[in-house]
Amino acid sequence: MSSYWKTYPVLEKQVALVKNLIEQRVQVRNPEISQAVAQLAQAGGKYLRPAFFFLFTNFGPNQDEDRLTKIAASLEILHMATLIHDDIIDDSPLRRGTVSIQAKFGKNIAVYTGDLLFTIFFDLTLETMNGSHYMQINAAAMKKILLGELDQMQLRYNQTQSIRDYLRSISGKTAELFRLASLEGAYFSGASPEVVRRAGRIGLNIGLAFQMLDDILDYSANQADFNKPVIEDLNTGVYTLPLLLALKKEPAAFKPYLDKQNQMELADMQAVANLVRTLGGVDAAREVARKFTHKALVDIEGLPKSQTKKQLTKLTNHLLKRKI
Amino acid sequence: MSSYWKTYPVLEKQVALVKNLIEQRVQVRNPEISQAVAQLAQAGGKYLRPAFFFLFTNFGPNQDEDRLTKIAASLEILHMATLIHDDIIDDSPLRRGTVSIQAKFGKNIAVYTGDLLFTIFFDLTLETMNGSHYMQINAAAMKKILLGELDQMQLRYNQTQSIRDYLRSISGKTAELFRLASLEGAYFSGASPEVVRRAGRIGLNIGLAFQMLDDILDYSANQADFNKPVIEDLNTGVYTLPLLLALKKEPAAFKPYLDKQNQMELADMQAVANLVRTLGGVDAAREVARKFTHKALVDIEGLPKSQTKKQLTKLTNHLLKRKI
Repeated sequence: MSSYWKTYPVLEKQVALVKNLIEQRVQVRNPEISQAVAQLAQAGGKYLRPAFFFLFTNFGPNQDEDRLTKIAASLEILHMATLIHDDIIDDSPLRRGTVSIQAKFGKNIAVYTGDLLFTIFFDLTLETMNGSHYMQINAAAMKKILLGELDQMQLRYNQTQSIRDYLRSISGKTAELFRLASLEGAYFSGASPEVVRRAGRIGLNIGLAFQMLDDILDYSANQADFNKPVIEDLNTGVYTLPLLLALKKEPAAFKPYLDKQNQMELADMQAVANLVRTLGGVDAAREVARKFTHKALVDIEGLPKSQTKKQLTKLTNHLLKRKI
Repeated sequence: MSSYWKTYPVLEKQVALVKNLIEQRVQVRNPEISQAVAQLAQAGGKYLRPAFFFLFTNFGPNQDEDRLTKIAASLEILHMATLIHDDIIDDSPLRRGTVSIQAKFGKNIAVYTGDLLFTIFFDLTLETMNGSHYMQINAAAMKKILLGELDQMQLRYNQTQSIRDYLRSISGKTAELFRLASLEGAYFSGASPEVVRRAGRIGLNIGLAFQMLDDILDYSANQADFNKPVIEDLNTGVYTLPLLLALKKEPAAFKPYLDKQNQMELADMQAVANLVRTLGGVDAAREVARKFTHKALVDIEGLPKSQTKKQLTKLTNHLLKRKI
């Protein structure tokens, strides 16, 4: 993590404060849980949501470090809670490069650890904004994230799902938290309503493009190290943008493979991945992701002239144009 | 449910309003989830927590039906969320007499459905008390409930756990929500600070005795229909009050059975249950439960003279002196 922000020294310091706060807050009387969560907090997470939050705090005059750090931590903790519960769903052995909480401690501990993080999220928002309508905005965001996850689960193995279905799901499960982070950064620093609105749009579009790019990289990675995420997604019936765009072109070509659902063999998955590429799914998905990245960059361009604006442009380009 | 409250006509109406509100609030765009949660809301739950809440609202002048109904619903929804997550832990096939959400829809849906209910709990508290320090009290209660569940999980198969450990776990997992319900009923109706404090104590003691009695009935039930809860608890290593009290007397007698942990056969469990009874575990546990019931009844006696005081006494006696 520390290396990730080395070219953004202010951000690096802010992110370190968030990390410390999280480590303090996840201390509970149950040592196993404390250790598990502290480990997740320490591990490779980039703290992207706190980072976007802090970048947007530069557009307002209010710089209460303690309060801003708590809000940033609430965003990362909400993210961590959903990660832990996602790993239960996906039976994931790994998270952030180390053993996932459910793999190490079992599903039972993972369910309650995620729940506990929701309460810590709740605490941090109450400490910083009790009485503000941003409490409702936080509750609505948490609900939207969960509904996005539920959408994705409902759409599993559905060969006729639309691009709109995919967009709705990722708007919730990924983009909502980027939106909230950006919005809150602007709002709680006291930026103008126009900047606050713009921040929300920027966060949303970055979040959408970020998830799309993740999904694209799964299919575009070198065939040599055929990609674990694709295997997991196909096995669990999660059809992402590159596949959906290729599937729309030639549904019949995919049907024999996809009909096997979780019985697909590795060869079937490789055939699907090849079809996705040869039918132009990867390129078409890149085009869609590019549009959302472009929207974000245009909106960033409209922000008040500042050093932060340059940093936002740099970070957005770095995140959304990455090849691996 | 409706029959349970027929001798409390006002309460019966109030509980029906809560039930309707919950059914409305759990409607989400995902029809399966809505249906699953609505079914849980409809099914055999007694709505005890809303009932205690409403009884305590009679000690104050503020009777905003809409607001009080929402707060009562928040309590039941928090309860439902924890039930759904508990069923994942316990792999329970049944809940409130119908198929549990995890058995019907799988663990995945159950994890997110519980999470979704946490957000609805969050919404309802925000609608009724945003800005009040009762927001913090609610967050702390939710955390205490989860820590109680985590305690119970940590204590599994531990033959040297103390009665204090057991009390701490049930203080969280069961009693905290009874405490919160009673406290909030008194507080949000505008009862005097003395009544609010007393209400919290009463709720706590009723909750403790309620859980103890549940645990006692598991061991005291007729041997003919040897009890599913005991089998589940022993299998999963949850040692409740009657067992712990007997175990303290003769740890060596239990060791050969309990050391088998989740490999116990039905005959082993029957031997454990018999030991619990013959060593006086059931009777000793009844004595402990009686003390907490007594504390609650004495505190109820000190409430301002009213019809509600009689109803609280009647309900407490009914709940805490039941034989099955």
